[in-house]
Amino acid sequence: MSLKEELREHFLTGHEKFLRNISVDCIIFGFNNNELKVLLLNATYAALWTLPGGFILKDEHMDLAAKRILKQRTGLDNIFMQQFHIFSAPERSPKEMNRLFLKNLGVAVEDSWMFERFLTVGYTALVDFSKVQPVPDTFSFACEWFNIYDTPKLLLDHREILQMALHNLQLQLNYHPVGLNLLPKKFTMPELQKLYETILDKKLDRRNFQRKIVGTGVLKRLDETKKGVAHKAPYYYKFDLRKYEKALKGGMGFEL
Amino acid sequence: MSLKEELREHFLTGHEKFLRNISVDCIIFGFNNNELKVLLLNATYAALWTLPGGFILKDEHMDLAAKRILKQRTGLDNIFMQQFHIFSAPERSPKEMNRLFLKNLGVAVEDSWMFERFLTVGYTALVDFSKVQPVPDTFSFACEWFNIYDTPKLLLDHREILQMALHNLQLQLNYHPVGLNLLPKKFTMPELQKLYETILDKKLDRRNFQRKIVGTGVLKRLDETKKGVAHKAPYYYKFDLRKYEKALKGGMGFEL
Repeated sequence: MSLKEELREHFLTGHEKFLRNISVDCIIFGFNNNELKVLLLNATYAALWTLPGGFILKDEHMDLAAKRILKQRTGLDNIFMQQFHIFSAPERSPKEMNRLFLKNLGVAVEDSWMFERFLTVGYTALVDFSKVQPVPDTFSFACEWFNIYDTPKLLLDHREILQMALHNLQLQLNYHPVGLNLLPKKFTMPELQKLYETILDKKLDRRNFQRKIVGTGVLKRLDETKKGVAHKAPYYYKFDLRKYEKALKGGMGFEL
Repeated sequence: MSLKEELREHFLTGHEKFLRNISVDCIIFGFNNNELKVLLLNATYAALWTLPGGFILKDEHMDLAAKRILKQRTGLDNIFMQQFHIFSAPERSPKEMNRLFLKNLGVAVEDSWMFERFLTVGYTALVDFSKVQPVPDTFSFACEWFNIYDTPKLLLDHREILQMALHNLQLQLNYHPVGLNLLPKKFTMPELQKLYETILDKKLDRRNFQRKIVGTGVLKRLDETKKGVAHKAPYYYKFDLRKYEKALKGGMGFEL
């Protein structure tokens, strides 16, 4: 089946396979070397960059749908994603878009479930982008990491979804630990601070940061300092995995 | 139209008005006088107690749908609810249920959109149950507050939804303030502690609680003590509204 035939079939009969009116979009943030990125697809059908998204099979748990969609569309596997918000504005599914594209496909808007309204569930994850290798699916020209502050024009309301996911990621720093799988096993306080500064996109006071992050109890200081540093070699830290997991589940602000 | 006719029409043609495959359920917690309750409906069609729920109109924002559903089904208006989770297990919509009920209605399972699979979005709120007056809709016999630990058998997976909403409410105490609109404008430390203990369903250490809650910065101590108490009259407190709102939005654990 050609790509065009495959798309045509999806537009005309996809509702026999998938749930109607609801979709999933994955906002995959990537961190490495003090840069925060987001994973985008260049979708053939939309001729625009989009978040990797798709639909839920009729008998599929939504969490598994999100995993399957991410894997099929970007090649990324074994990524821990969490649902964070449903986007439900009625105007987010403009019926008028892509008439030309549909005409080329030979599909009328009124014949396609794809032009009904969709609520979309945003799933997020934060990974080390140097450790994964994105591969675009057959519906896409490209699958690439973009700097979070330098993204191209996006499909539909995907920019808004991305902004809200970023805001959510930043807010979570207030009560969830971050850094496991993003930093080396042992890291220095300046390295950890740089991770926070990159996500928050602002400078933090060194002493205040250290006091607060140590206060959360998720760190263990090692009896080892970083070698080869000019003077005042910084100590290495690692995460206390038990406390990290606990703080991830329960929040770490104000444990009663 | 009789109730039976109305229900029959809803089962046969509701999908012309509502989105398919997705519903909304409201978990309304009520606090008053150190008791935590939940609002339930006794639905005629299910012959069981249920969470107040319903469907999203084809052109309606989901947040507005949740408000409309809560108002129509329980009479509660102007309640600030938040989406907290989507329940999407495929087995949560058992196709076999209520065959007898459908037979009475004269509707075949295969003719009704109501027996397709539904994902449901849980919306939660915490209110003072003495300040609202629930009124059941025409589809329900009763709309009543139940003690959270003494609820009747519930429809479908509503017990699981309720448990998860309660767990979520308890977790949020770790990083969000609580008490505004649930306690009097000025309240004592023991009154605030009792609210936390009621939600968490456990005793808290008095000194530890006071230290932590004062540490969040959302309280202002007044220069006034409670009269008519045997000895050591407790001070009154009130919430610092600006800081309360800020902590509600941003979390209050670990502000950087």
